[in-house]
Amino acid sequence: MLLNCDLGESYGAWKMGLDSHVMPHIDLANIACGFHAGDPTVMANTLALAKAHNVGIGAHPGYPDLQGFGRRSINLSDTDLRNTLHYQIAALEGMARVQGMTLRYVKPHGALYNDMMREEAILLQVLKTLSEYPAKLKLMLLATAEQAHHTRLAEQFGVELLFEAFADRLYTDQGQLSPRTQPNAVHDEANVLAQVKQLLAHGTVTTASGQTLPLKADTLCVHGDNMDSINQIVTIKKLLQDQ
Amino acid sequence: MLLNCDLGESYGAWKMGLDSHVMPHIDLANIACGFHAGDPTVMANTLALAKAHNVGIGAHPGYPDLQGFGRRSINLSDTDLRNTLHYQIAALEGMARVQGMTLRYVKPHGALYNDMMREEAILLQVLKTLSEYPAKLKLMLLATAEQAHHTRLAEQFGVELLFEAFADRLYTDQGQLSPRTQPNAVHDEANVLAQVKQLLAHGTVTTASGQTLPLKADTLCVHGDNMDSINQIVTIKKLLQDQ
Amino acid sequence: MLLNCDLGESYGAWKMGLDSHVMPHIDLANIACGFHAGDPTVMANTLALAKAHNVGIGAHPGYPDLQGFGRRSINLSDTDLRNTLHYQIAALEGMARVQGMTLRYVKPHGALYNDMMREEAILLQVLKTLSEYPAKLKLMLLATAEQAHHTRLAEQFGVELLFEAFADRLYTDQGQLSPRTQPNAVHDEANVLAQVKQLLAHGTVTTASGQTLPLKADTLCVHGDNMDSINQIVTIKKLLQDQ
Amino acid sequence: MLLNCDLGESYGAWKMGLDSHVMPHIDLANIACGFHAGDPTVMANTLALAKAHNVGIGAHPGYPDLQGFGRRSINLSDTDLRNTLHYQIAALEGMARVQGMTLRYVKPHGALYNDMMREEAILLQVLKTLSEYPAKLKLMLLATAEQAHHTRLAEQFGVELLFEAFADRLYTDQGQLSPRTQPNAVHDEANVLAQVKQLLAHGTVTTASGQTLPLKADTLCVHGDNMDSINQIVTIKKLLQDQ
Repeated sequence: MLLNCDLGESYGAWKMGLDSHVMPHIDLANIACGFHAGDPTVMANTLALAKAHNVGIGAHPGYPDLQGFGRRSINLSDTDLRNTLHYQIAALEGMARVQGMTLRYVKPHGALYNDMMREEAILLQVLKTLSEYPAKLKLMLLATAEQAHHTRLAEQFGVELLFEAFADRLYTDQGQLSPRTQPNAVHDEANVLAQVKQLLAHGTVTTASGQTLPLKADTLCVHGDNMDSINQIVTIKKLLQDQ
Repeated sequence: MLLNCDLGESYGAWKMGLDSHVMPHIDLANIACGFHAGDPTVMANTLALAKAHNVGIGAHPGYPDLQGFGRRSINLSDTDLRNTLHYQIAALEGMARVQGMTLRYVKPHGALYNDMMREEAILLQVLKTLSEYPAKLKLMLLATAEQAHHTRLAEQFGVELLFEAFADRLYTDQGQLSPRTQPNAVHDEANVLAQVKQLLAHGTVTTASGQTLPLKADTLCVHGDNMDSINQIVTIKKLLQDQ
Repeated sequence: MLLNCDLGESYGAWKMGLDSHVMPHIDLANIACGFHAGDPTVMANTLALAKAHNVGIGAHPGYPDLQGFGRRSINLSDTDLRNTLHYQIAALEGMARVQGMTLRYVKPHGALYNDMMREEAILLQVLKTLSEYPAKLKLMLLATAEQAHHTRLAEQFGVELLFEAFADRLYTDQGQLSPRTQPNAVHDEANVLAQVKQLLAHGTVTTASGQTLPLKADTLCVHGDNMDSINQIVTIKKLLQDQ
Repeated sequence: MLLNCDLGESYGAWKMGLDSHVMPHIDLANIACGFHAGDPTVMANTLALAKAHNVGIGAHPGYPDLQGFGRRSINLSDTDLRNTLHYQIAALEGMARVQGMTLRYVKPHGALYNDMMREEAILLQVLKTLSEYPAKLKLMLLATAEQAHHTRLAEQFGVELLFEAFADRLYTDQGQLSPRTQPNAVHDEANVLAQVKQLLAHGTVTTASGQTLPLKADTLCVHGDNMDSINQIVTIKKLLQDQ
């Protein structure tokens, strides 16, 4: 079970995330590409940090909206979505090659990630876009009750999927994340560890209503916002190594 | 003698340049990369147009300044300049590969081009930046009285140069373009053709003071702003074909 | 019946609209405020042009999206919408006062205009936002079958409305504009003049299904994109003056 | 002796500065206007915070360069500089009036501040720009050995000046701030307090070479980046109150 984290989300003089604290503990770095966060120097530095810690790298493209940090949905045409993704992926992929690194996957960011999980037309356009790219790139997306269906869709485009689960979030019966506005949407540490253990041992999560939902996860999404979240990563890492 | 032109300078709803009229007549398209002009869809469309007309493609990166169209100098640190160039080049190079095309060269835009021609430290940083890029990329720059010196500098970085001359601009004795604020800085049609003939026959231009300056040019820069400039391209093209 | 037109939509080096041709013929200029189009110098020049032709001025604020020209809906929170509007209105209002001019009204642009006409919550937030502004500002919006209801809503906020109609667009039975994707959505010249005459004589339009819909319009929206649209303005102006 | 501080420098999801910790201790808040930092909601919140603490407000306009945080010089034309300032000042002034507040002064930010202190042509253009604005606005600038000359220039434009001094920075003999690259450019706490005492008691500072330089300061610039700088403000405040 690999650990992935969103990184490289600073911009110019504005710092975000404790990247240098997170990088030693994770396996996969989702790197912002300049449209919702990240600038060319932030990207180069994040790539160098990933290289130093032998962390796999993925592109983390978003809607073109710095002010909204890519968290506001923007209704792009299919053509604009495709080109917007190709541009961001290409920018990071080329900068990675400058450092002798290989881009492995793409994980859409924020509102684009949510839109892709909600509207199949957008997921199909993302898959088509990745299949057109000249480097082999996997798509990272949320493991939900639809994951078998998503796998079949991806196979039609020859794109491999990386399913991610969340250690710290409560799931609905449909395998979506409970909205943060709901009570108990974010787990405390005991529940985080319980959820990780259950995922590892049984490939399931216990949903908000108490049901047991099968979820096959290739990777766990962790966070590096503050020292508490770094400590949580370390705890999860230890649990994984003890398996 | 190849013809090159700045293209792909539209942005969103704003159109600039008669790209579809120019493309059939030129050999090399300098394509804006989104920082001073161009957006992902404009870039994809410009690449497709170049491909349809079998035109060689180069990146035309600029300072990050849409409002100033890259015509205002911005004092970037060496690191920021390098990363800003890698980002823009990579974005276009990857989008070109999506269409099965190969990026051949880089021509800095506007104020960055002028800064590079004026300050050797910037030229050296541009050369270093290109030498680091994993694809083989030539640098297009102005043919001046310094071109032998510039060739030696480029050789130290293993970068090939493409020297460009201007058909429609008067040269100073130092082989710089006379500023547009000077009288006669921009040639009329008769002088355009005379300058092209002289470049072809003798590898020289006649400067503002009447001196004969040797200039070895690999390519001529032409413009596609309006139908007059398109007509001028056609006339120059005919003259080249008649040689 | 006043003529209004969207102006000041250039940005930096990119020109849009034949503002100097339109301004002599219109009564109200809707001036872009820098978020979807317009930059400080474009705004200052547009204000000066309006002043020279004694044209009333309104703010034409949009979503923060230059690349999408404000034509893509962005889901702003109520607070962000309010502050985004106050900022743009204030920027133009202060620049108008620099030139001794008074801002009269606000007409939201593009996707924001459409969102406001479709979702009452957004219209209410716009009305509240205008009521909070220290200068007296009217709201320009589409005259539809709902206009009596809209007037009542506006009265609750003490905001006066300016209803606009379109001369060149076919109306649905609900008094919305037929989408441009529909056949006959945009009138030819004969139908433009017929629609204006009917609005003037009877305060009605004939809808796509042939029904007669009452529409009280304070102003007609005209366009200045090209010389054809300028000629249409002149024709409409003549028709109005002949009444 | 008033305390002033740069505030409202967050942008979207990126936080900068401990504004709520600083505001209770200062007299004048220099508020970013959206071009180098600040967005409409950050501006509205910063104004509300200033109002709650009865702090005087000034506009802190910068070059249009979010990525560079306004710290990179951009060579604007006189016209663009004027309009860029009018736009930013107007945006903040109107938003202040929405909250029943009055804008008192303007302090250019970062590279624009430095350019203005170095090039008299820019200072003159800033003064002219403020004199054109319909509200009475003072200009805050650095107290240097030139301050009598600067006062005469300002009087020609009918603009009042607010001279600021720095508590924590070493001065050159010309009354400029020693570059941060120099040793001892930034004072330790003992020297901070000594410099403030000397300014209050004698209207002088001791320069890098040990000379005594007369400096008449209306306000001290303090910083709110972190808790250390907040503590320094509290110490300075106490010293001022004890006078």
